[in-house]
Amino acid sequence: MKVKINGTGIYLPPRIEKAKDIAKLINKSTSWVENKSGVYERRISDIDVDEMGAIAGLEALSGGAAPDLIINASGVPKQTIPDTATFFQKQMGFEGIPSFSIHCTCLSFVVALHTASSLIISGAYERILIISSDKGSKGRNFREPESASLLGDGAAAILLEKSSKNEPSELLHHTMRTWPSGANLTEVRGGGTYKHPHDPDTKFEDNLFSMDGPAIYKIALKQVNRILQNTLKNTGLSRESIDWVVPHQASGKAVQAYSTMGKFKKNQVLESVSKFGNCVAASIPMTFVLAVKYEKIKRGDIILFIGTGAGLSAGCTLIRY
Amino acid sequence: MKVKINGTGIYLPPRIEKAKDIAKLINKSTSWVENKSGVYERRISDIDVDEMGAIAGLEALSGGAAPDLIINASGVPKQTIPDTATFFQKQMGFEGIPSFSIHCTCLSFVVALHTASSLIISGAYERILIISSDKGSKGRNFREPESASLLGDGAAAILLEKSSKNEPSELLHHTMRTWPSGANLTEVRGGGTYKHPHDPDTKFEDNLFSMDGPAIYKIALKQVNRILQNTLKNTGLSRESIDWVVPHQASGKAVQAYSTMGKFKKNQVLESVSKFGNCVAASIPMTFVLAVKYEKIKRGDIILFIGTGAGLSAGCTLIRY
Repeated sequence: MKVKINGTGIYLPPRIEKAKDIAKLINKSTSWVENKSGVYERRISDIDVDEMGAIAGLEALSGGAAPDLIINASGVPKQTIPDTATFFQKQMGFEGIPSFSIHCTCLSFVVALHTASSLIISGAYERILIISSDKGSKGRNFREPESASLLGDGAAAILLEKSSKNEPSELLHHTMRTWPSGANLTEVRGGGTYKHPHDPDTKFEDNLFSMDGPAIYKIALKQVNRILQNTLKNTGLSRESIDWVVPHQASGKAVQAYSTMGKFKKNQVLESVSKFGNCVAASIPMTFVLAVKYEKIKRGDIILFIGTGAGLSAGCTLIRY
Repeated sequence: MKVKINGTGIYLPPRIEKAKDIAKLINKSTSWVENKSGVYERRISDIDVDEMGAIAGLEALSGGAAPDLIINASGVPKQTIPDTATFFQKQMGFEGIPSFSIHCTCLSFVVALHTASSLIISGAYERILIISSDKGSKGRNFREPESASLLGDGAAAILLEKSSKNEPSELLHHTMRTWPSGANLTEVRGGGTYKHPHDPDTKFEDNLFSMDGPAIYKIALKQVNRILQNTLKNTGLSRESIDWVVPHQASGKAVQAYSTMGKFKKNQVLESVSKFGNCVAASIPMTFVLAVKYEKIKRGDIILFIGTGAGLSAGCTLIRY
């Protein structure tokens, strides 16, 4: 599909929490945090997800025309109703722009990028702004040290448009699968009809993030590898021809697995978890946007967005930037 | 876009709440409920949204092959994480099927139908199951009689596939717009990062549905009319050539407005609010599926799905069934 990422934006909250600060919150040592989660520091946001996302969104538009569709591709909403995309639009100062969410937890951006490409190719929209903004710090459970040490806050946005015949940009491949047998491995059980705040059996922990890291890692390794093999087979690409792997920043270990187990070179795999933690759905676009800003990623590069999300889902979107 | 709704399913909870029962809950008279909301009875579900949706989903598949994508198009999720589509898949007994949500509150189905059509036309998927399942009874605020008298429970599903050249079925038109100036007119403020259950300033009401009915009605009337005019203009269709209008069942008054103000004949406009209440995102597909089952809607009929949702959004999807 001939589409092009024609604008990028990011919001990195200014407040930094170092591994030694995190260690105190979860009653562990600094080295435990650094070794177990791979997080050396992360950002904690004093503004809510809508303001964070709007800053990234406006930067992606860089003063150009308004988008004709705003897609929220975050992990956790601002409110149950209305949709977070509405609040992004409000904070950006627009009115009358179609706004909705695509939700696939940590893979929301990967799925939204593919879906938005379909919408552009079918002629429905021309200029789609995709925003991922997550404030995982709100859902940290300090009694669950592993996930509490991982979650950070951040937002990123991209502007997607049609690419012309002469431009290299296109979406090359997308695949995503969900295995509900792993549904209980990553959860925030509250926030919906199941564990309503007013239900007497809703526990304190139900409103916080819970994760069985080792169990997810085991399934993720197998399923991500399968998806990777199929993607290489279906596209006829080799690992060497992929310029950059932009994985979900689930943990330091999860990112390393793309080089140790996934057989990519270490310098092909982009990493941001050590500086920003696991920012839920925002991790993949944040890592991508930072690499564009630092001029690592150049127009025409082949980029593999890949990862896992609660569901359990695994998926990837392969593009030529 | 040459797509076809090739299967339909519905779940109507067996427990009935009559207007006189509703009246007691909100300390009003039976006639107040019937006149103000237009609800004479509604269903209250004893099972959660995932089980409700799975029953409708399996009926839509009617024993055929598994879908290659499951889209949740509901108003309110089961949990914050993972996505409700995962739980639909789990309840239906599948594994490994891509599953994600499209969320646009009460317009989720209208947007999902269009987005799924794009995904089919672009060749990404062939057999998409869209499920809308809402349990509004969980969010009723009995101190706000108008919305509390409206919300009911229900689920519906459709199976979307490509249609062949010789088949009449296609998606003819879609439009949706969002005006964040109306964001606070319909809200469930809790359930996300804004009014987290653990925040000391989160009030009891923040976890319940709140609605400014008269203000929404005023804006909705104007914006829905504008969308209707544009749709007729862009498609070259007259009101007479549309066989069925399937509006969101916001209230009795809102449904009537399509004939009184929208100038459709009363028997063109399908109504279910009097029997099932306002079932949030499930209202439109429930009304549609019931009309298919009762053989009102026939293959080849032109159907206008239209309505408003929290956002404030207004939109429509026009199909030839």
